[in-house]
Amino acid sequence: MKIAVDVMGGDYAPGEIIKGSIDAVVSDGIKVILVGQEELIQEELKKYRYPAGHVSIIHASEVIGMHEHPAKSVRRKKDASLVVATKIVKRGQASAVVSAGNTGAQMAAALFELGRIPGIERPGIATVLPSPTGPKVLIDSGANVDVKAQHLEQFARLGSAYAEGVLGIENPQVALLNVGSEPSKGNEVVIEAYQLLKQGDLNFSGNIEGREIFQTDVDVIVCDGFVGNITLKATEGIVAALMTMMRAELRKNPLRVLGGVLAKPGIKDIVKKLDYSEYGGAPLLGVEGVSIICHGSSKARAIRNAIRYAYQTAQSEMLDMIARGFHEG
Amino acid sequence: MKIAVDVMGGDYAPGEIIKGSIDAVVSDGIKVILVGQEELIQEELKKYRYPAGHVSIIHASEVIGMHEHPAKSVRRKKDASLVVATKIVKRGQASAVVSAGNTGAQMAAALFELGRIPGIERPGIATVLPSPTGPKVLIDSGANVDVKAQHLEQFARLGSAYAEGVLGIENPQVALLNVGSEPSKGNEVVIEAYQLLKQGDLNFSGNIEGREIFQTDVDVIVCDGFVGNITLKATEGIVAALMTMMRAELRKNPLRVLGGVLAKPGIKDIVKKLDYSEYGGAPLLGVEGVSIICHGSSKARAIRNAIRYAYQTAQSEMLDMIARGFHEG
Repeated sequence: MKIAVDVMGGDYAPGEIIKGSIDAVVSDGIKVILVGQEELIQEELKKYRYPAGHVSIIHASEVIGMHEHPAKSVRRKKDASLVVATKIVKRGQASAVVSAGNTGAQMAAALFELGRIPGIERPGIATVLPSPTGPKVLIDSGANVDVKAQHLEQFARLGSAYAEGVLGIENPQVALLNVGSEPSKGNEVVIEAYQLLKQGDLNFSGNIEGREIFQTDVDVIVCDGFVGNITLKATEGIVAALMTMMRAELRKNPLRVLGGVLAKPGIKDIVKKLDYSEYGGAPLLGVEGVSIICHGSSKARAIRNAIRYAYQTAQSEMLDMIARGFHEG
Repeated sequence: MKIAVDVMGGDYAPGEIIKGSIDAVVSDGIKVILVGQEELIQEELKKYRYPAGHVSIIHASEVIGMHEHPAKSVRRKKDASLVVATKIVKRGQASAVVSAGNTGAQMAAALFELGRIPGIERPGIATVLPSPTGPKVLIDSGANVDVKAQHLEQFARLGSAYAEGVLGIENPQVALLNVGSEPSKGNEVVIEAYQLLKQGDLNFSGNIEGREIFQTDVDVIVCDGFVGNITLKATEGIVAALMTMMRAELRKNPLRVLGGVLAKPGIKDIVKKLDYSEYGGAPLLGVEGVSIICHGSSKARAIRNAIRYAYQTAQSEMLDMIARGFHEG
């Protein structure tokens, strides 16, 4: 099994992407195919020692920029690293694609090249959130900003298959993200989705509020991509603000400075635990293959985690479970 | 100027509500009218010493529960504390109403009793968020879960008048909460609202992402009540989770324990700074009067802040500014 890595995508490409790929090779024994401009890749690879049989290169002459139009760029740039990396998954040369590049373009490439699993109208991005009560899947975290009730119901099925197949959670509990717990709460789409889920065969436990995301027994949290994106980024933002303020506050007097120095490793551990961007990227669920979307700001550590994660996902029975779920449903 | 307080609303009513009211009287010299069951109020008041002329009581025989249907309960329970407290604002006996009770019922009471400012279709709840770059107004934080573009444009006007009139921010910068910064980003409603705001006369600075909420120069952040509610509660939730994890993490070894003890006052200061529920409640903007909505879990400190805040708001020219803004607009 090999993982295709788009080494040209992301704020720190190709250096950090290649570094992370080599980490995955050396530390986890995973085989990778580095896709991008060959000369650049060869140059970067000189920095590392690794088992030669574990790393191959596929040259791609073009690059899709972070702000290019997703569908248009994928259609026009047939030899873009992201497109080529997705194509080799389709061809079976690789088992998954990992990219930190243009998210929209990655989705478009997955839709055009891999195609949707029959029965799924809108693939969704699943983000795995760490929490004191274990990992949660939040879906959709940004792929679809305008949705209908049946799309939320499909996200619930996708998230549930993922939680079970990849995270190993048996009969995962699913909830809708909402402004209150009663079935009558929420906007029109969410109220309708509640009824669909209630009548369905998933382990649906109702609505949860924003406050509960990080402290709930629920395993799969369902929302549209507009709410999901803003919610996740807002929580990232407040943690960053908190850390900025903490640094200032812990300089205010010598006792606090000492306290800060001693407490720092603990505080760092927690922030790392809550930092889902370090978790290793978010899978696009609902397409016929494994496509892992990484944060644009991913450095080597995040890329290595994403590759390991892509490997686990590709090894799992998730795709079959999703297909079965929709076939039976 | 007197502030009407619904002493029967909230998880800690009437004890903490009355305690907070007396704090506002004693520490801030504000005159309050306590609205609720007279015997209960008299009993509670025995615990405190305060200038008698600053506290009056208006008896209300009924109470609206936290989970009662907003509009129905307000229509049926004409003598509910929340309804009576709002009525006396309409009559000019009080300058503002403060409640920690049923939020929906408080909105319904404000709509029925105070009425909307002409030109405003949907009043919105403004939440003042503390941040390292100064206070921000987020509107709507929960009143309207299904909105049209023109409602977002009206929230922008309301929030701008509030930031200028009450927070004293000159020519406040207004932004839309969105999934990206480009005008083409977002769901249909937000894309349309962008164009309305761009053509309007507010100081509109475009879209901001969730990550920027707590670290932006923007003064007014506009979104629908579904997104606003979930975003705010999610940020509350992650801070709570962070603190839970920090307590566990800082017990792991003696050095960390010592660090935690020394750093604790600093950490507490920051959490207090970011805790907008302590800021003193959220005004319902767009109605003909001042109605301040408090968190159901408000204790005395939050109620005292809300009363002080209600006083400042009632003293400001905000209502005139809003009316003028919509008249000119």
